[in-house]
Amino acid sequence: MKLTRRVRQILANYESDNPGSKTNLARILMQGRLGGSGHLLILPVDQGFEHGPARSFAPNPEAYDPHYHFRLAIDAGLSAYAAPLGMIEAGAASFAGAIPTILKVNSSNSHATTKDQAITGSVADALRLGCSAIGFTIYPGSDDAFEMFEEIRDLAEEAKDAGLAVVVWSYPRGGNLSKEGETAIDVTAYAAHMAALLGAHIIKVKPPTASIEQPEAKKVYEEQGIDVSTLTARIAHVVQCCFNARRLVVFSGGGARGTDALLDEIREIRDGGATGSIIGRNTFQRPRAEALAMLDSIIGIYRGRG
Amino acid sequence: MKLTRRVRQILANYESDNPGSKTNLARILMQGRLGGSGHLLILPVDQGFEHGPARSFAPNPEAYDPHYHFRLAIDAGLSAYAAPLGMIEAGAASFAGAIPTILKVNSSNSHATTKDQAITGSVADALRLGCSAIGFTIYPGSDDAFEMFEEIRDLAEEAKDAGLAVVVWSYPRGGNLSKEGETAIDVTAYAAHMAALLGAHIIKVKPPTASIEQPEAKKVYEEQGIDVSTLTARIAHVVQCCFNARRLVVFSGGGARGTDALLDEIREIRDGGATGSIIGRNTFQRPRAEALAMLDSIIGIYRGRG
Amino acid sequence: MKLTRRVRQILANYESDNPGSKTNLARILMQGRLGGSGHLLILPVDQGFEHGPARSFAPNPEAYDPHYHFRLAIDAGLSAYAAPLGMIEAGAASFAGAIPTILKVNSSNSHATTKDQAITGSVADALRLGCSAIGFTIYPGSDDAFEMFEEIRDLAEEAKDAGLAVVVWSYPRGGNLSKEGETAIDVTAYAAHMAALLGAHIIKVKPPTASIEQPEAKKVYEEQGIDVSTLTARIAHVVQCCFNARRLVVFSGGGARGTDALLDEIREIRDGGATGSIIGRNTFQRPRAEALAMLDSIIGIYRGRG
Amino acid sequence: MKLTRRVRQILANYESDNPGSKTNLARILMQGRLGGSGHLLILPVDQGFEHGPARSFAPNPEAYDPHYHFRLAIDAGLSAYAAPLGMIEAGAASFAGAIPTILKVNSSNSHATTKDQAITGSVADALRLGCSAIGFTIYPGSDDAFEMFEEIRDLAEEAKDAGLAVVVWSYPRGGNLSKEGETAIDVTAYAAHMAALLGAHIIKVKPPTASIEQPEAKKVYEEQGIDVSTLTARIAHVVQCCFNARRLVVFSGGGARGTDALLDEIREIRDGGATGSIIGRNTFQRPRAEALAMLDSIIGIYRGRG
Amino acid sequence: MKLTRRVRQILANYESDNPGSKTNLARILMQGRLGGSGHLLILPVDQGFEHGPARSFAPNPEAYDPHYHFRLAIDAGLSAYAAPLGMIEAGAASFAGAIPTILKVNSSNSHATTKDQAITGSVADALRLGCSAIGFTIYPGSDDAFEMFEEIRDLAEEAKDAGLAVVVWSYPRGGNLSKEGETAIDVTAYAAHMAALLGAHIIKVKPPTASIEQPEAKKVYEEQGIDVSTLTARIAHVVQCCFNARRLVVFSGGGARGTDALLDEIREIRDGGATGSIIGRNTFQRPRAEALAMLDSIIGIYRGRG
Repeated sequence: MKLTRRVRQILANYESDNPGSKTNLARILMQGRLGGSGHLLILPVDQGFEHGPARSFAPNPEAYDPHYHFRLAIDAGLSAYAAPLGMIEAGAASFAGAIPTILKVNSSNSHATTKDQAITGSVADALRLGCSAIGFTIYPGSDDAFEMFEEIRDLAEEAKDAGLAVVVWSYPRGGNLSKEGETAIDVTAYAAHMAALLGAHIIKVKPPTASIEQPEAKKVYEEQGIDVSTLTARIAHVVQCCFNARRLVVFSGGGARGTDALLDEIREIRDGGATGSIIGRNTFQRPRAEALAMLDSIIGIYRGRG
Repeated sequence: MKLTRRVRQILANYESDNPGSKTNLARILMQGRLGGSGHLLILPVDQGFEHGPARSFAPNPEAYDPHYHFRLAIDAGLSAYAAPLGMIEAGAASFAGAIPTILKVNSSNSHATTKDQAITGSVADALRLGCSAIGFTIYPGSDDAFEMFEEIRDLAEEAKDAGLAVVVWSYPRGGNLSKEGETAIDVTAYAAHMAALLGAHIIKVKPPTASIEQPEAKKVYEEQGIDVSTLTARIAHVVQCCFNARRLVVFSGGGARGTDALLDEIREIRDGGATGSIIGRNTFQRPRAEALAMLDSIIGIYRGRG
Repeated sequence: MKLTRRVRQILANYESDNPGSKTNLARILMQGRLGGSGHLLILPVDQGFEHGPARSFAPNPEAYDPHYHFRLAIDAGLSAYAAPLGMIEAGAASFAGAIPTILKVNSSNSHATTKDQAITGSVADALRLGCSAIGFTIYPGSDDAFEMFEEIRDLAEEAKDAGLAVVVWSYPRGGNLSKEGETAIDVTAYAAHMAALLGAHIIKVKPPTASIEQPEAKKVYEEQGIDVSTLTARIAHVVQCCFNARRLVVFSGGGARGTDALLDEIREIRDGGATGSIIGRNTFQRPRAEALAMLDSIIGIYRGRG
Repeated sequence: MKLTRRVRQILANYESDNPGSKTNLARILMQGRLGGSGHLLILPVDQGFEHGPARSFAPNPEAYDPHYHFRLAIDAGLSAYAAPLGMIEAGAASFAGAIPTILKVNSSNSHATTKDQAITGSVADALRLGCSAIGFTIYPGSDDAFEMFEEIRDLAEEAKDAGLAVVVWSYPRGGNLSKEGETAIDVTAYAAHMAALLGAHIIKVKPPTASIEQPEAKKVYEEQGIDVSTLTARIAHVVQCCFNARRLVVFSGGGARGTDALLDEIREIRDGGATGSIIGRNTFQRPRAEALAMLDSIIGIYRGRG
Repeated sequence: MKLTRRVRQILANYESDNPGSKTNLARILMQGRLGGSGHLLILPVDQGFEHGPARSFAPNPEAYDPHYHFRLAIDAGLSAYAAPLGMIEAGAASFAGAIPTILKVNSSNSHATTKDQAITGSVADALRLGCSAIGFTIYPGSDDAFEMFEEIRDLAEEAKDAGLAVVVWSYPRGGNLSKEGETAIDVTAYAAHMAALLGAHIIKVKPPTASIEQPEAKKVYEEQGIDVSTLTARIAHVVQCCFNARRLVVFSGGGARGTDALLDEIREIRDGGATGSIIGRNTFQRPRAEALAMLDSIIGIYRGRG
């Protein structure tokens, strides 16, 4: 599969990586219906770990079956499928080679008493399961943030040596952050930047609000006239904070809601220059046909149609 | 890329392998214009090591450039490209993700004073270079055969742990073998079987002649009426010896010669049930346009056209 | 490049180091427009991690691009460029060999709830990225200071074995220190001395104020008549506290402000016998032309002109 | 030191290497009076090991002192200095940072009873001594060639991981090779090609004669009309065999002889497109002034003057 | 004990060594009655291993007791005592700190069927026994020479890391060497040079004869008019071959014989610029009083008296 000019431009930004990591990035970038466009649409199914199975899968009981998600991601023509160890183990052989997988190597859950995650997968797991990348969540702001940063540093070094790609979910929370601050524009842009500094190839953050959390930041945003008035402007700012777009950045779809609202948001995200979206609950909590239709619309948006 | 039924059937035969190795086998089986058919057409460029650069590339001087071979394999829609360390290093980043690569991890040369090969690549090299498989040559019959068997056993174990595929070139020579015996049907079938027994995912042998080398084997071939009268019959016998077709087996194209003779031979190989062909000199020693035309014909043959 | 007498004198002070660490120190000391003078001017860009991207780069948006800083440091003729992992990865191949780099291997951020830093880089990272040194921040006084000391001890041992240089940012804070005490002359001199004791080759501290934090220290400073009345006198004291000038010590440029004030301060720092300056925000938050002009003036000051 | 366009083009050919190895290649390519030109002139002093001290240094007794060679290489403005462990240890601190060094990590001697070399240095030695590269000799054709290939494969992997460059001396000898064959054009081109396949960044071979050793090769050279009539044509052929000039290739100066003959040969080597020369005996066996004059002439030739 | 200027000059030649190795060299150089002079007189007792106990100790039965040798070396005011593992273990606690010890870490014996030695001690042994150095024998010219070189390379790296000194016994034998050639001047100078290249701090060779073994060397010795007519001239040549006297070189006392002959030889060795002597059999095979008298004379010679 000859790489497109756009994908080659993107890979050139990963200038310190070995051909193995570039190969796995290329696999993700060339996969599915957005393949070659430089855009990504990823299905993450870590909700079961994060929120419990019933909260995650009861709205669409087929989704209790790990094969359901592989099949959905493939049939929808997505770029990659991300999930924790057990979910990948349960389908990796049946769907070997059909879609790049991202092994989520740390996980939290709704019983957790700290803003931290447990390491629940390894680079060796990713290799034996044929994954193209590891995924790791950091919680900037949390009391455990430094420990999480040190964990991803170790895992990223090992993953890059083995020619894998590294995806970082950067979700500010805990510590001195207000609830609103978790998605504030300054906090989100900072979180994305920290993921880039930690060596992430692909960065996942939430679509930011216009709120500004840190007083020192507020001053700068105002003085410098950084436009945070629209989601598109905020996305553009986050993309700039990812090494001036030298790193791929995808935005989560957030809580379950109506399709139109979601698509409108994705149009704004696209217009801000985002690499793409990573949409879990809004995908697998819908009936399959509806989910496929919605994903088709999202792909259309990223392909510039709609 | 949804796997075809045929590819899923093939992968099912590798039932002890982890999803990583299956993923890499799937990548090779789904690549190029034979992708999904269950057939393979591989470009190997280890001739430079084996016979020297002038003997390999002077007939088509563009082939001195390692990028030439990557480009040729991609443009022709082949299944994979196999080469020693330096050749892969010289293009692995430029062509990352464009075609599965097989790192040839041992190599001989025409100055060699023993029927052996040096280990010239590692599993870690294969991972950092984004390869889908390692390739290894054994010389059944050689005084060094046991040592070579032990080397591939070690490397195959490590490769399989890391989710790579393992391709074994099985070329009988040395020891008590006559020159004619190196391609005798009994010796070739035996060599393919030993490669399967050593855990190869993909086996490469030469198209066998009707000659029978070992007296004990000759007795059985005659008593049991094993048909070795045509190349197609002999190929069918070799395929049967590869765990009754549970392992993929590809046949080399041999020394440079006329296109018609080559295509005729490949038709016979196909009719015998071979997985496909692995054709080096006959590809890169022709001018590019001619090579592309020839590969197009071969692909047509394996797709059942011609 | 023949080393100057001055640089050879400096290297002789690192008498327990292997030739590898001396080589990397020499590379830094011989680089750029101060090369050979024994003075250093270093560009550190860890502000993105420490203060967030908008606060760091919005005043000069070109600075969002990691390549901007490599180019600026090279074009200005600086001695070295220091940054965290992601920033170095994003440009290390494009600018390989053009300027010595210092991999900042620990990092804090403005969400941190402790006076600590996370380890965000390794010696192996520094080697694969072609860096000449690792950089590490300690917070003398912090509740986590001992742990930080233990971390740099481990990393410095590994770095020195591998022939790298070690740069320590010594920034007192936390614990019983008052805000004013963080830059008090006794605290700064003590912090610099502790960095030297921990085995730093190059020490970075802030220009100290005339304040004296610790009562026991105050008594001695007064009894012994240590001159802390001018910045030049205080710098001279800090330099003396770095093994009587046997270790290189550079001073940070502090918060953004006017060029004249900055240059005046640097004249005083130079007159105190400092090795040089390490100036981040005051460099990259100015427009490029202005930054180059300012760096030219600073180089002029260290070369004795101005 | 801003890299020249030519050096950046060269580094781009090492597309699978990490920025560390690129940095060390850049250091060598930017050093001395040929710095930035893409040409190299290297001083190797392994003669003491290979032929004994008197045969090496008696003609110019100053050369018994290891410092002599560092100083000569620096004063002449050469690209790098290559020597075995003890020679590097004896001067690495005195000349730290003044010139890139290449640690020769295997060595033979004139008492040897096999065509082999002993491993006499390690990657850890190279790092602690501040070297930019390791150097390793292979003897293609020798009964020990496969073992030597396996040794350099291991050492090269380790060196590249640590960001060092890898220089391979490829000297055919032993086994079935005739004395004349050791420098035959087919054998030399093949030896250079094998070094490239083993992953060498820089390849050193001897200037080839017009002799052709292997009958199978002879046939091809004649059929394909490969011009071997002049040294320039032969050099061009060797360069082509080093991945179509994607790898740097330097030619040794051979036995001691008159300056004019040597310079004439180097003009032919240059005209053939060689990267440069690596000249030991012809340098250090002359009185210093004479050696400097000769090296000045060689530099002039590679800079296109003369 | 303040180091003398002479010892400081000597230590400066070990410029790549860490202070640990320098400390242990200093201990040996400052020990005993030659302490500070730059001369060494070492007692080696490896004869028991090499020739058997009766041949070694029967002439002076007190010498069967390992304590005898420690005591003799201390009482005579020697520089160091060298012996294999068991001999050191048998006295290291009783004489802890009284004299620097050199653990001979390989050993041969008179039953040996190859010109090789067994590794019979480790760096860890040397450390636990409080030794200042390891000692190692190489047999240049032997069929096993390359293996021995690789062993000392490994051991020397480990010893130097641990701050020990490294003493190499370089005794040509085996392979193509004639019996006379083992002590020929060209062979001895070459053997000393190889030990230096392998990284030895202290080199031990036998006093050379005027014989020249290698025809290629003979030509050079004659052409260059290298004076080998007297032992003093030959010693001077060997010293020059040890990096122009940058490495310490001691000469063995050879077979047992009369005191006068021995002292005459040592005068010549001293006049040639040797560092000193290492005398085993001629010491411990004499009655203690006689040995002490003889050692007193040798010390007198090296102190310039006699």
